[in-house]
Amino acid sequence: MRPHELTLSAAADAVAAKELSPVELTESALRRAEETEGQLNAFATVVAERARTAAKQAEQDIQAGRYRGPLHGIPFALKDIIDTAGVPTMAGSRVWADRVPDADSTVSARLEAAGAVLVGKTHTHEFAYGLITPQTTNPWHPHRIAGGSSGGSAVAVAAGSATFSVGTDTAGSVRVPSALNGVVGLKPTYGLISRHGVAPLSWSLDHVGPLTRSVQDAALVLAALTGPDPRDPACLISPHPHAGCGPSTDLRGLRVGVPRSYFFDHVTPEVADRVHTAVDHLARLGATTLDVEIPLTAYLLPTLWGLMAPEAASVHEAHLQHHADLFGDDVRTLLEAGRLLPAVDHLRAQRSRTLIRRAWRELFETVDVIATPTVACTAAERGQCEVRWPDGTTETVTETYVRLTSPANITGLPALTIPVGFDDNGLPIALQLIADHLAEPDLLRAGLAYESTRLPEETFPQVRTFPAQR
Amino acid sequence: MRPHELTLSAAADAVAAKELSPVELTESALRRAEETEGQLNAFATVVAERARTAAKQAEQDIQAGRYRGPLHGIPFALKDIIDTAGVPTMAGSRVWADRVPDADSTVSARLEAAGAVLVGKTHTHEFAYGLITPQTTNPWHPHRIAGGSSGGSAVAVAAGSATFSVGTDTAGSVRVPSALNGVVGLKPTYGLISRHGVAPLSWSLDHVGPLTRSVQDAALVLAALTGPDPRDPACLISPHPHAGCGPSTDLRGLRVGVPRSYFFDHVTPEVADRVHTAVDHLARLGATTLDVEIPLTAYLLPTLWGLMAPEAASVHEAHLQHHADLFGDDVRTLLEAGRLLPAVDHLRAQRSRTLIRRAWRELFETVDVIATPTVACTAAERGQCEVRWPDGTTETVTETYVRLTSPANITGLPALTIPVGFDDNGLPIALQLIADHLAEPDLLRAGLAYESTRLPEETFPQVRTFPAQR
Repeated sequence: MRPHELTLSAAADAVAAKELSPVELTESALRRAEETEGQLNAFATVVAERARTAAKQAEQDIQAGRYRGPLHGIPFALKDIIDTAGVPTMAGSRVWADRVPDADSTVSARLEAAGAVLVGKTHTHEFAYGLITPQTTNPWHPHRIAGGSSGGSAVAVAAGSATFSVGTDTAGSVRVPSALNGVVGLKPTYGLISRHGVAPLSWSLDHVGPLTRSVQDAALVLAALTGPDPRDPACLISPHPHAGCGPSTDLRGLRVGVPRSYFFDHVTPEVADRVHTAVDHLARLGATTLDVEIPLTAYLLPTLWGLMAPEAASVHEAHLQHHADLFGDDVRTLLEAGRLLPAVDHLRAQRSRTLIRRAWRELFETVDVIATPTVACTAAERGQCEVRWPDGTTETVTETYVRLTSPANITGLPALTIPVGFDDNGLPIALQLIADHLAEPDLLRAGLAYESTRLPEETFPQVRTFPAQR
Repeated sequence: MRPHELTLSAAADAVAAKELSPVELTESALRRAEETEGQLNAFATVVAERARTAAKQAEQDIQAGRYRGPLHGIPFALKDIIDTAGVPTMAGSRVWADRVPDADSTVSARLEAAGAVLVGKTHTHEFAYGLITPQTTNPWHPHRIAGGSSGGSAVAVAAGSATFSVGTDTAGSVRVPSALNGVVGLKPTYGLISRHGVAPLSWSLDHVGPLTRSVQDAALVLAALTGPDPRDPACLISPHPHAGCGPSTDLRGLRVGVPRSYFFDHVTPEVADRVHTAVDHLARLGATTLDVEIPLTAYLLPTLWGLMAPEAASVHEAHLQHHADLFGDDVRTLLEAGRLLPAVDHLRAQRSRTLIRRAWRELFETVDVIATPTVACTAAERGQCEVRWPDGTTETVTETYVRLTSPANITGLPALTIPVGFDDNGLPIALQLIADHLAEPDLLRAGLAYESTRLPEETFPQVRTFPAQR
């Protein structure tokens, strides 16, 4: 096994034991990027020399006894809307072509303080406003999309050119590409991770979250990223949840809610089957499963758009006024539509969000986690605009992908996606777990138990190889 | 002295000592209403029989040793947008003509539980959306306005037909009429008092607050009204501030900030003089005075309107659609304007509020309270639309009245208004004190010290007589 194929947890153990050098690990990731970028194009910018310098520094520090913890010397990638001082951060947009921020985002600063090694900035759908990431290819199939908006971040982790990455999630942008590319993605509770220095899309829905190869890895990255930050007005000052719980395979006492509707409506049979199998697996580990009724489902998508469209238009008001021609057609259209929305419609969405939040908090009086598919179908074909369902209805790819992830953005509740198998085309399928406010420990408990006991045929992700080489 | 002339504190002491019967006190207030209503018209509804029954019950309970505390047996009035089960609550609007709610607001329920005796519902500017309360007359001058929107609540307390009252304050609607009618008004920290069962005007700015004859009285009413309430999503669940601090005349250690600008710009010389004299008085009691610079002043009024206009239009969307003709011209125009505002403009106001809030919280790192005039001039003449300033500029009466009070709504910070004298026309002038989030104890400390040591010529309010009888 080459070093870039290790999970973060395994790599960290090897680095801490001085069995693996950060230099060797970083070189392995950089070589992997060279091998795969021609086909995958996960990166907007690779900072090989910067990474080599940081890896060497990490190696020296560790040799000298200044080990900083599990992220020390680990190569990672950042979505290209998360600022790193001196490194281009261009948000996949001509509006920000050649932009080089002069200050770190809080996320960048925290990861650097933890000793992690930045290998590059990963492609995003333009300003994170889309579910495709057209620059990037899905490593499981050359004609399939990476998903978005953190498409490059997911592909870099799936392909092995970064041991972990960080993305953002406004309606599903960490979880959708994680699901489509077979990696773990975590959208934490709203406000748990600072967004200072991260280009906003819709500030009341935006979250930062890790993309990793295992749930254990996600817990490690989460622990490094959380903490109060006065520069993000939404950032929570209350103590962050205990994220580093050890894995246990005993889920007795955990109440898993399985929605009777909405989350299994218009879902492909393969996805529904795999998710139900995964829930059965949780039950075998001792979890109690219960049916739950998802409240106010008809309001979910109107609420999402009523919040997101005007907030995004507000964020990009000056860009729209001065450089509208620089946006891609899809994003410009969405921004212009958002600019026309009356305040009373936006306020209706804010009010309905309050009701939805309250109803979901009540749900968690009877269950600890809710288990759903992350996305309704596996990765779409490049250029595909619509999904056609057996009942004859069609849906845009965008709506198909945000439909099941956006409730956790509207409510601000934490949600974890875990790969749970493949469809007949060999494309990854994912389980989503949603928990109560700051109940990340419940998500991680269920996820860790699942991944440490999964059946051999479900074992996933294994070796991070590009399928062309399989 | 007739019983209705007593402050709440004095009446409560007498009731507790069984020297004054709730029946006698209530009859005195009801008689006072009969004497004055022809000229003042403070009440939309007087519930004399209901009050007599409640007073008799209070008397029996107290005689039987079931004394509930300082509000027990005290006659009070409620602004006519605060629901009381079975009592008409019409919000000063033809839209709600003859509306009789079938459930209590939280405020009504709490006051009833405290044993207070409702004498009636007081006039409001239509749906609290204005600063005039045209139905009602200022008791200090028959041609002057009561101010609003809690105009009836202030006049009832000033005239003696209620020992205290409760109003609401979205841009100044407790403090402006308190100032213009010479009573004490408190707008507490946003979320401290539940608004369940209170007609909203602009939910992110709306506050409930007491109007009383003394600061000590305001502290008593505040203590009865605070506490968590899940039915108001903004209601704070954290413990409410200690409001019942005993009066002390020693203000050593209290830092009083005096704004160099904004709060003394376009203020009549008489108002500025009296407020500065009151600040000097606080300094004589030991307070330290410091100059403070008010931040972001150019954004205050645009932020207020950018928040309030669309929220009000959202609240009344269905009324506007079906009964637009029932609104008064002024309110209908404001609602229709709010309906046209784009979401991006509203969001700009939300964002600027965040910046304003943050800047004000920083102010309170160096001072404990900020002392300002409550309103820039004394009560306007009935029918007056504009205020003309010596530099030749003019301003609407509405803007003149909200200019100095609305910052505490935008920031959600607590603010207290205290009468501090009269102008040459015999009209009341008021001092406003603003404190940090949940720092009501600082406001009350300064206010109690002031009122217990004010000079004889400032002594105010004395006997609650209508000026025609003076």
